[in-house]
Amino acid sequence: GVLGSGDFARSLAVRLVCSGFKVVVGSRNPKRKANLFPAAAEVTFQAEAVKKADVIFVAIFREHYSTLCDLADVLVGKILVDVSNNTEINHHKESNAEYLASLFPACTVVKGFNVVSAWTLQSGARDGNKQVLICSNNQEAKRTVAEIAQVMGFTPVDMGCMSSACEIENIPLRLLPAWKIPMFLALGLFLCFFTYNLIRQVIHPYIREQKNKLYKIPIEVVNTTLPCVSYVMLSLVYLPGVLAACSQLYYGTKYRRLPDWLDQWLQHRKQIGLLSFFCAALHAVYSLCLPMRRSHRYLLIETAVKQAVEKKMTIWVEEEVWRMEIYISVGIIALGLLSILAITSLPSIANSLNWREFSFIQ
Amino acid sequence: GVLGSGDFARSLAVRLVCSGFKVVVGSRNPKRKANLFPAAAEVTFQAEAVKKADVIFVAIFREHYSTLCDLADVLVGKILVDVSNNTEINHHKESNAEYLASLFPACTVVKGFNVVSAWTLQSGARDGNKQVLICSNNQEAKRTVAEIAQVMGFTPVDMGCMSSACEIENIPLRLLPAWKIPMFLALGLFLCFFTYNLIRQVIHPYIREQKNKLYKIPIEVVNTTLPCVSYVMLSLVYLPGVLAACSQLYYGTKYRRLPDWLDQWLQHRKQIGLLSFFCAALHAVYSLCLPMRRSHRYLLIETAVKQAVEKKMTIWVEEEVWRMEIYISVGIIALGLLSILAITSLPSIANSLNWREFSFIQ
Amino acid sequence: GVLGSGDFARSLAVRLVCSGFKVVVGSRNPKRKANLFPAAAEVTFQAEAVKKADVIFVAIFREHYSTLCDLADVLVGKILVDVSNNTEINHHKESNAEYLASLFPACTVVKGFNVVSAWTLQSGARDGNKQVLICSNNQEAKRTVAEIAQVMGFTPVDMGCMSSACEIENIPLRLLPAWKIPMFLALGLFLCFFTYNLIRQVIHPYIREQKNKLYKIPIEVVNTTLPCVSYVMLSLVYLPGVLAACSQLYYGTKYRRLPDWLDQWLQHRKQIGLLSFFCAALHAVYSLCLPMRRSHRYLLIETAVKQAVEKKMTIWVEEEVWRMEIYISVGIIALGLLSILAITSLPSIANSLNWREFSFIQ
Repeated sequence: GVLGSGDFARSLAVRLVCSGFKVVVGSRNPKRKANLFPAAAEVTFQAEAVKKADVIFVAIFREHYSTLCDLADVLVGKILVDVSNNTEINHHKESNAEYLASLFPACTVVKGFNVVSAWTLQSGARDGNKQVLICSNNQEAKRTVAEIAQVMGFTPVDMGCMSSACEIENIPLRLLPAWKIPMFLALGLFLCFFTYNLIRQVIHPYIREQKNKLYKIPIEVVNTTLPCVSYVMLSLVYLPGVLAACSQLYYGTKYRRLPDWLDQWLQHRKQIGLLSFFCAALHAVYSLCLPMRRSHRYLLIETAVKQAVEKKMTIWVEEEVWRMEIYISVGIIALGLLSILAITSLPSIANSLNWREFSFIQ
Repeated sequence: GVLGSGDFARSLAVRLVCSGFKVVVGSRNPKRKANLFPAAAEVTFQAEAVKKADVIFVAIFREHYSTLCDLADVLVGKILVDVSNNTEINHHKESNAEYLASLFPACTVVKGFNVVSAWTLQSGARDGNKQVLICSNNQEAKRTVAEIAQVMGFTPVDMGCMSSACEIENIPLRLLPAWKIPMFLALGLFLCFFTYNLIRQVIHPYIREQKNKLYKIPIEVVNTTLPCVSYVMLSLVYLPGVLAACSQLYYGTKYRRLPDWLDQWLQHRKQIGLLSFFCAALHAVYSLCLPMRRSHRYLLIETAVKQAVEKKMTIWVEEEVWRMEIYISVGIIALGLLSILAITSLPSIANSLNWREFSFIQ
Repeated sequence: GVLGSGDFARSLAVRLVCSGFKVVVGSRNPKRKANLFPAAAEVTFQAEAVKKADVIFVAIFREHYSTLCDLADVLVGKILVDVSNNTEINHHKESNAEYLASLFPACTVVKGFNVVSAWTLQSGARDGNKQVLICSNNQEAKRTVAEIAQVMGFTPVDMGCMSSACEIENIPLRLLPAWKIPMFLALGLFLCFFTYNLIRQVIHPYIREQKNKLYKIPIEVVNTTLPCVSYVMLSLVYLPGVLAACSQLYYGTKYRRLPDWLDQWLQHRKQIGLLSFFCAALHAVYSLCLPMRRSHRYLLIETAVKQAVEKKMTIWVEEEVWRMEIYISVGIIALGLLSILAITSLPSIANSLNWREFSFIQ
């Protein structure tokens, strides 16, 4: 059974029919809405639909839950699936599912399907790669809904009892939460090092020697800033592990909880590492672009002309040559190793490694 | 039960035995074929095999389906699994499974396992990442076969009723269908822009000034063509969304179906975007190779020698310097952003993003 | 039921409670250990715990299995899940699970969950991407444990009967076994070609003309070595397929087993190909870095100065120019094609291709 006639209700009915279920749609105006639903789905009045169905998807907004109170009698003993989402994180005190359960204490409420969009229901793959998070206080009802999800081509994930509903409802609203702190960290570090390099490479020569080196800002200053950010971020990946080990050694036990800030830090290591790799890769591209610039060409020609006029035939400085050869070759090797690290952090590859292989690569 | 003794039948029997099933193989010549099958599988005459089994895999060619008609009596009430494939898309009017069902109306026919190769059955991972598409008009039979697939280490995907059989049979025959139009589009755009740039950079200077610039064709002309293709493709990714929005605003409803060409276009956006990224990445590599060329070196030395002879000490053009610095740095940033877009289009990463995160990155 | 009170036992109890199971923990000192477990889990003496549970996870070391012999009477008819790991590959003659089964012939032993770490149990995703390999001689017991694994958010993989236990126990101990031979092969080839290039580019000019070209070692010699390694590796990817085809043609059958060395070789093709791509990518980066070097700059200026002094105005060699243009452009196209090959070898993309598409790309 499906209650509601919005986008989600329609897509849900289509998918259920496709997966071989008998679907009854309950609407307050069944005649006008019938043409919105697939022909195989029976569209009728809410009370009748509820009577015919055992599992009822409540595809209406939280604000209208109270309009269902008239159906309280026929709903007794049924499984209600709350598929609703909020517009803001922690918008209401209690989750929508818990609110629905409090309105209909005689029903079994299951939270689920809210992480799936109407688009995924209608056009998405039926390949089981999309997960449907489910929670309920009633094990049996949860299992029934999980089976429906599986037949529809999703992977049901049991999130435990009803108290997880709030967490499940917040999932479609989150915006890359694990990346927020590492992103601000990278931006902050970039600004600090950029200012330092700007003063050192552009402002200082201007004040001391009145030389105009402003052209260095877009590429050269950025290019000296990126590896600094990359290095600091990379060390921030490995530091918290050392701190945690020290703390465990100091207290002589590994069962003592680590302080919250250290725990948070440990959980953001992957993101910090990937941002470090991103900065290193950008640094490589910037460095490779250096000989393409006009300024490089002009300085080269100027040096050549100056020497030709002075008839100075050779300028080979062995030390300078070696410094650059070693610097570049170490840089390439470091980038190659970081690339392997970055590739193994792809979910599909990380899942195929065991713990020993993962720590070997790290 | 398995009917047939080809490659697929053997691999199927091996896998079924490995997964703990009791397997009976039906052959017209059981004595000669017995050594091809694992010892744990019983090889016997077709009629006997059918009697002993509830679920029968029909691993023979469509052309030989009619030879099974002798078994019609013993087949009554059994579940037949059609695992066959065609050699051409839509080769026959009705799908193999529907043909089998019409021959044996007293059996329940299930289509499935045709997307799995004999190689995958024998050597492939049992990790559930390979999907087995299943369809049937009988829900219970479908569920039985789905359970067998799951125990064998595959992920069964319910494709609905028998009318999907044709679609399932076409799957192993398709050749990157979603890439065909975007590929031809990219090739067409490349040819157009290449011709234009060839005329502009090589043919025009030759006609006007008799200068031989043919050496520019392999790198410089290609390098000016690639970003043009990339830009046009990138705009083609975002244009259909705008058109669809306009159409919805014009008709005042989002329930009206979009015209077919627009629908097709919307579905190819991902492929167009990835080809755009591929062109942009190639352009970056081509640009980085520019200073490696002999021609670059010769032109540089010629300029230096000319100036030295004329004793012209400086050639610094501030505007030229700035133009190049800004051009390169904007290019690197654009490539970095496109890379992030391309990475998030990997299936394993796209599945871990919710709708809000996906549209934020887009 | 869970026997044991180590890290793994605790994480297992937490996850089981979260997934909605009633958990009984058996400990020899329940009072002291009770605070280590979640409140919802009942911690009691071993014998009592065993009486209350149907499925018992034996989370203790193999060395202590014999201490459970006192419980033999209450264990009759129960399902024992062996979750143990070894510290070395093939440490004992028989697998831990088989040893447990021999100690308690009246119980049904299932091997499983050993590939999951305590960390994954507590903090890992419940998204079904982590596989739990299960094997047992009893189909029903295996199915019961598989269902538990599924409800806990893992993907159970049926590995057949108890004889696979040894294989399952070795999995967490393996260290990239498929990469060992290709890695040594790549290293060997690199050393051979490096020595040859070192003699040719550095030692030979030194002996013949007393020229010091040592500065070429870190970049130029490595850069000429990498493409040689890459080419040989790439040909080693396609060679075994040809050999296998020849062998099949020679013997006139495709059912004859290939020799072991050829079989091994065929199975390592993917790793050899990826290493070939890695060398090719490194070669590209090294080549792009060539114009950044001091030595490049010095040689350029020297040539310019020499010519300016001699008043030789032009040095354009059409053949040299063309050679370099074609060399670079073929290199870029080859790298682009290899990149596509490398991307399609990512598990999440490879799984979405059918056999025809895969061989087309190859």
